[in-house]
Amino acid sequence: MMRFPFRRKRPPALADSGPRARVVIVGGGFGGLRAAKAFADAPVQVTLVDRRNHHLFQPLLYQVATAALSPADIAQPIRSVLRGQSNVEVILAGVNSIDVAAKEVVLDEDVGRLRYDYLILAAGANHAYFGHDEWAPSAPGLKTLEDALDIRRRILTSFEEAEHEPDPARRKALMTFVVVGAGPTGVEMAGAIAEIARFSLARDFRHIDTRDAKVILLEAGPQLLGAFPDRLSRHALRDLERLGVDVRFGKPVTAITPDAVTVGDEIIPANTIVWAAGVQASPLGRSLGVDLDRAGRVLINPDLSVPGHPEIYVIGDMASLKDARGRPFPGVAQVAMQQGAWAAANIQGAIEGRRVRPFRYRDLGNMATIGRNSAVADIRGLRLTGFVAWLAWAVVHILNLIGFRNRVLVALQWLWDYLTFQRGARLITGVAAD
Amino acid sequence: MMRFPFRRKRPPALADSGPRARVVIVGGGFGGLRAAKAFADAPVQVTLVDRRNHHLFQPLLYQVATAALSPADIAQPIRSVLRGQSNVEVILAGVNSIDVAAKEVVLDEDVGRLRYDYLILAAGANHAYFGHDEWAPSAPGLKTLEDALDIRRRILTSFEEAEHEPDPARRKALMTFVVVGAGPTGVEMAGAIAEIARFSLARDFRHIDTRDAKVILLEAGPQLLGAFPDRLSRHALRDLERLGVDVRFGKPVTAITPDAVTVGDEIIPANTIVWAAGVQASPLGRSLGVDLDRAGRVLINPDLSVPGHPEIYVIGDMASLKDARGRPFPGVAQVAMQQGAWAAANIQGAIEGRRVRPFRYRDLGNMATIGRNSAVADIRGLRLTGFVAWLAWAVVHILNLIGFRNRVLVALQWLWDYLTFQRGARLITGVAAD
Repeated sequence: MMRFPFRRKRPPALADSGPRARVVIVGGGFGGLRAAKAFADAPVQVTLVDRRNHHLFQPLLYQVATAALSPADIAQPIRSVLRGQSNVEVILAGVNSIDVAAKEVVLDEDVGRLRYDYLILAAGANHAYFGHDEWAPSAPGLKTLEDALDIRRRILTSFEEAEHEPDPARRKALMTFVVVGAGPTGVEMAGAIAEIARFSLARDFRHIDTRDAKVILLEAGPQLLGAFPDRLSRHALRDLERLGVDVRFGKPVTAITPDAVTVGDEIIPANTIVWAAGVQASPLGRSLGVDLDRAGRVLINPDLSVPGHPEIYVIGDMASLKDARGRPFPGVAQVAMQQGAWAAANIQGAIEGRRVRPFRYRDLGNMATIGRNSAVADIRGLRLTGFVAWLAWAVVHILNLIGFRNRVLVALQWLWDYLTFQRGARLITGVAAD
Repeated sequence: MMRFPFRRKRPPALADSGPRARVVIVGGGFGGLRAAKAFADAPVQVTLVDRRNHHLFQPLLYQVATAALSPADIAQPIRSVLRGQSNVEVILAGVNSIDVAAKEVVLDEDVGRLRYDYLILAAGANHAYFGHDEWAPSAPGLKTLEDALDIRRRILTSFEEAEHEPDPARRKALMTFVVVGAGPTGVEMAGAIAEIARFSLARDFRHIDTRDAKVILLEAGPQLLGAFPDRLSRHALRDLERLGVDVRFGKPVTAITPDAVTVGDEIIPANTIVWAAGVQASPLGRSLGVDLDRAGRVLINPDLSVPGHPEIYVIGDMASLKDARGRPFPGVAQVAMQQGAWAAANIQGAIEGRRVRPFRYRDLGNMATIGRNSAVADIRGLRLTGFVAWLAWAVVHILNLIGFRNRVLVALQWLWDYLTFQRGARLITGVAAD
């Protein structure tokens, strides 16, 4: 076991100006990465640790799951994003726990411990099955690139098997796709699967008509896109139904097996089931020994620090905080990014002896896409639907991707898909390579 | 168990013109795909079966393994390539064996049997370890997209682990990359790994200098790129050595473990080992009950048919055939493609009562690339090196990719990599998603 830093190729730029505060950031998602960038030129030594080598642009992950984009188009190596910042080092390792007393981050597999003066926890959330973890193998969620490739494989393989399935009942199950949960991810998945069946694959098979595929979107609550204004969520519903998606409200899923979903009294035979219904914060919050909410999020102070630990900040999907009107901040990228910058500013303030300030959120709006020419957007009161919303959605997402290369590649592929109705990443991979 | 075809969405275009000969093609690689296309408009019913849903452009697979391209850039769904040909159906299934007596292809997992009047076997080859299959987990070869992603993961993870490895000996092993076999794949892999270490990663790490990485290319024979003229192979050697690759000839590898390669008396500690030394034809050839060569290839007639079975053709990497001067045809894409077209023509000739003709090969040349601005090309006697060869290599490979979309995406990414010295697909994926 060793302590970082243990060796240094070249001295840090400001090494002579005395000992510098050590900041450790756990997680290279939207929050952690923004925090690391906010420390550029600050007299601190930053270590960002993530179990992945890449930052993932999660809002477009469903496009990898539905064969429109490649993993590399929406992911960027974290150390390459931060290469120009000489006061940042990046470590690829899992984090086991936080040793609050020793002020150390304990890494997995005896890689070592990271000492910190200040800690920013930004390890995000994973999907949760409300106490039914046994559903996970049958109904994968969508959080990582591996999840997305798994779902892509399931969708494409279902059509392939249906093509040579002689039993009509089994063929129908192979061509039934159930998405559980009608938040943005569920709506986007359901719309994209319907488009694959109706357009992209329509001419490719000889024995099945892919347009017979059934896409069912299940929502236990009363409406889809609950975070959006009523008019927009009704609009999204109409657009989904025009694509042929069967949207059902008000009944919770009670059982999931590899080949069926039970909702209320009804058993729906389905070969492909996608889970988009709930998340659980990273278990790292538990090792802080402070209060958590039901979803495992840390109940933080308004300044984003942890009660009793002014040196620890928790941000993004790991944090539970309410705004001035008592509404919880949603688990979206813009909250995480703004909190990342805010936590970094508060830490610099604390180092310089200034007072830390309570987090203030600047809500830039909300968007979700249903399919070609169809999206809903609520941008600071301006409510858009249809083609205009879809175009706004596309532009905002391309501009927010990291890296010029990815922006060009995604824009080109969208243009191509739009003109040809095709999807460029229709690969079934990950099967046994024999 | 059922027999194909068992159901049909719409009648085939020429269904009224009497019973049509059934052609089954096993394999959607260069040979099989070209054969299927050659049957366009022919009065035959073609079934192409492959265990993969995609045709893979293998000559660029090393670029996926070295993080320059994404899998989807060099792969295309087979049924999408053939969607316009109404007399072709595509089945995604593995082939278990050929029942020569019943004239049936036996599919894996009880999917069924495919009756044929004519059969084209084009199932290719896999890497072979010369009786040392135990080396496979330590030294993966490069045949599938999964192989490529596995090698990419190993290369990138080695640098990540070296960054926080305190033991100097272990760090040196992590930064040692051994490629076994100096044919085109081995040369291209060694050159690309050296470029990653020297250029792409050079500024990304804080504790290691990636330019210290050691790339060793081992070749048991006396020279690299054995199929090329001497002058070109010497030129390639010089270019590789300029990139810092340590090329060693004349000693066979005698042992491979997860962390070392033994060559002659020397044990080379290395964390990443890539196998590019030998291939073995698909085991399907065995079920024909005819003579095979040492690499498992079927010894075929000059017209590409199997001795005693004029209804069975074997092409590409599965076939063993010598040209008029007694030299075996090499296992490259252009041989497979020309044989695919030739076998299709001979089958049509046989159906129409014409005489089948012996295969004639039109050698269009040979190319291999070492790195930026560096390649060798032997095009019908015209011998190119350096930048000109590299440009010719790039143009030829882009033009031969299937699909306008892939051509544009690959060209753009190469341009981007060329200008920035970066690699756009530096993802470590496939790790446990916890």
